[in-house]
Order: sequence, then structure tokens, then C-alpha cells
Amino acid sequence: MKIKVYRDLMGDNDRWAAKTRVLLAKENIKMLNLIGSPGAGKTALLEKTVRKLSRRLDFAVLEGDLETKNDARRLARLNCRVSQLLTGGGCHLEAKMVHYAVRDLPLRRLDMIIVENVGNLVCPAEFDIGEHAKAVAISVTEGDDKPLKYPLIFREAGAVVITKTDLLPHVPFRLKKCLGFIRKLNPRAPVFQVSALNGNGLGGWINWLACAGGFVPGGGLALKPFR
Amino acid sequence: MKIKVYRDLMGDNDRWAAKTRVLLAKENIKMLNLIGSPGAGKTALLEKTVRKLSRRLDFAVLEGDLETKNDARRLARLNCRVSQLLTGGGCHLEAKMVHYAVRDLPLRRLDMIIVENVGNLVCPAEFDIGEHAKAVAISVTEGDDKPLKYPLIFREAGAVVITKTDLLPHVPFRLKKCLGFIRKLNPRAPVFQVSALNGNGLGGWINWLACAGGFVPGGGLALKPFR
Repeated sequence: MKIKVYRDLMGDNDRWAAKTRVLLAKENIKMLNLIGSPGAGKTALLEKTVRKLSRRLDFAVLEGDLETKNDARRLARLNCRVSQLLTGGGCHLEAKMVHYAVRDLPLRRLDMIIVENVGNLVCPAEFDIGEHAKAVAISVTEGDDKPLKYPLIFREAGAVVITKTDLLPHVPFRLKKCLGFIRKLNPRAPVFQVSALNGNGLGGWINWLACAGGFVPGGGLALKPFR
Repeated sequence: MKIKVYRDLMGDNDRWAAKTRVLLAKENIKMLNLIGSPGAGKTALLEKTVRKLSRRLDFAVLEGDLETKNDARRLARLNCRVSQLLTGGGCHLEAKMVHYAVRDLPLRRLDMIIVENVGNLVCPAEFDIGEHAKAVAISVTEGDDKPLKYPLIFREAGAVVITKTDLLPHVPFRLKKCLGFIRKLNPRAPVFQVSALNGNGLGGWINWLACAGGFVPGGGLALKPFR
């Protein structure tokens, strides 16, 4: 008698993620999964990252959204190699869709792929897309208690980016408290405080990416490498 | 021969939502489902709503979060009747959990229940919890294109609250553009522009709630009533 087996929902996703990881390893490409709330400033951060990072390595961006090509257009304007992944309502990027998008890139040339996930602090943290590291973006307008309320992504992150620091004088955000909460959940990930508006703090973030991409071997920086 | 029937995943949720709606109808209570990104200012909005609204009707708040009782504590400090619903990682409130929390409230006394859903602009929009209306909160720091990128919740909302308007001078948010996007998706829902920090615009929002709660019959306001 045949026994039907129902695999867990994540099984299929994880298989596609593993396939992507094999493909990336073969081409020696690192992939970053950038996660944050809607409006955390992920695309603005990438806009400011593109020019400086492109001097140090060759990369592509995959833009995840429910709807619209707005974000891909913003980056394409900067001559960034970018594809748009539309989930059509889905709350996170799935590994299969990412795999097909990765396969279509000119992999021979690339050192790195940066994936901007759907704006959501919860679901994207749970779905492996074959990345080597996750980074989480949190803006100072969101409130300093967000790491406590959405702990999974802060625990999993290889780097934390606190965005919109230019707004600190105008919002009730206790930076020290927030840093403490992050440290408690994740003692090792570097935390970058940046403003895409005035450019403050972007250097450290871009260095971290460049190290992870393998272009600054060792790099002289005590940054947690991509796994 | 017996035929096995597999119901859709949403079926069970919808049954619990329907049960809640029956219960609320019997007690003549209106329920609002407040949805927004992490850090959109939902709890701050409720903090400023509690005192003024409690002069006009008797209500309770259900606070949805993945982790921590922080938000319930913030409201309890204001003598608000509040329960905390913890999803333990879940990205939205499910109807069953809400039903049990509703059942435990002193329903005879209440005119209204306000549910603050988990901070997430995507998944909570898809799950009926037995509410009579949804309201969506979006902060000016999130960017004016968010209605286009997360259209479902803006289409479904009975009211839209644009929060943190005190920050308008400091952020690149094109208010007119945003209002246009909202109107295109949802021509009828009232749009309130509020600041929990300086109190601007809160009157209209609180009036809308009071109308919906049935305490200002007709109310003299051309606001879309709860369904």
C-alpha cells in the first residue's frame, strides 16, 4: 500500500533556496537579502549605495514588491543592473521566483546580488531565498522598541541599518535604548546609523558590503562576514 | 464511497470571523480593525484617541503584536480597557484568537472594540477578524507611493489615517500625490491627516469613530459608516 507523504510548506521553498546557493557558489557570487518595513528607506539606501559600491564590485539588484515597478525604475535611473520581482499581493519573496531571476542575470560578471525584499518586517524573515546574509533596515521614525516587537529578523540579521538618522532631532527615538535592544538579540552584527538624505554613515555600510563581496580580502574591518 | 473535502485555508478563519460578527451584532457593538506598518504610529494614535473617545462611548482595545506587552501597557496607563494578543511570530491576527478575546470582554457595557493588528501592511489586510470596518494608518515618513505598492488595504479601508504630519517639513513626502493615489484606489473613504505629537487633525478621526459607534446618529458628517 502506498503511503502519501505531505511535506511541510517550507520544504519546496528551501529546495529552491539551496539550488540558488549552489548556483551562486559556482559563480562565486554573494547574495544579500535586505528586509524592512514599508517605508523603512530600503530603496533610498540602495540609491545611495549604488554609485559608491559600483566602484568596488559588480553587482545586480532584485527589487521585490507586491505591485508597481517604481523601485526598479528608481535604481535603473542610476544605471544600476536591476530586475523587478512582483509578488502580486504576496507578503514575501519566495525562493523559486528569486531563483529564476538570479538565473537570468549575467552571473559570470557579478560579484554580488542585493535583493530588496517586500516591505514587511515579519514574513520575509521566515523564508530563505538562498542568500548568504540578511540585513535589516529600521528607520528612526518607527520607534526604538521595534527590535523587541519583531525579534526574529534582528536575531537573524548579518547587519542592522538604522535609517533616516537626519530625523533624530524631530522624533521621540531613544537611540541608546534601541542599540541596547539590538545588542541583546544579536551581539555580533554590525549596526550602521545612516541618512540617505545627507549621506551620513554610508561609508561603513558600503565597506561591509564590499568586504562581504570579497573585494577587500580581510578588509581590515571587524565585520561579521556573510556566512 | 466517502469523498474527502479539503477546505481552503481561509475557511476556518472566516467561520470564526462570522461567529464574532454574530456575537457583536447581538450586543450592538461595532469593531474596527486598525492596520499599518510597524512604526506607522497606530498605538500613538490610539493613546491620543482614548481620552476623547471615552467621553462619547464605551470601548475596549485589543492590541495585536508578535511579542511584548508594551503596547497594552501604554494604553492601560491611560485607564483604557485593553487586552494583549500575542501571535508569537505570526504576521497577522487570526479570527479565532480575536473571537476568544472578544468573548472575554464585558460586552454588555461596550459600544465599540478597536483592534490594533500586527504591524504589517500586507497580511492583516487578507484576514477577516469579524470587524465592521478596517482603518489603515500610514505615516508621512513611509513615502507617498505606499498606497500604490500596497493597494489591497487601501482599497478595503473604511478610513485612511495619514500620521506624523508634524514631520512633513522634514521629509520628502508629496501629500497631494499621496491623496491622489488613495482616491484612485478608494474614492469614498475619509482621509484624516493627524499628528499624535501636536494633536492636529485628531477631531475628525474621533468623530468618525464616534459616528460609527452609533453615538452620534447621523452625526452631521458625511463619513462612510461602518458596514
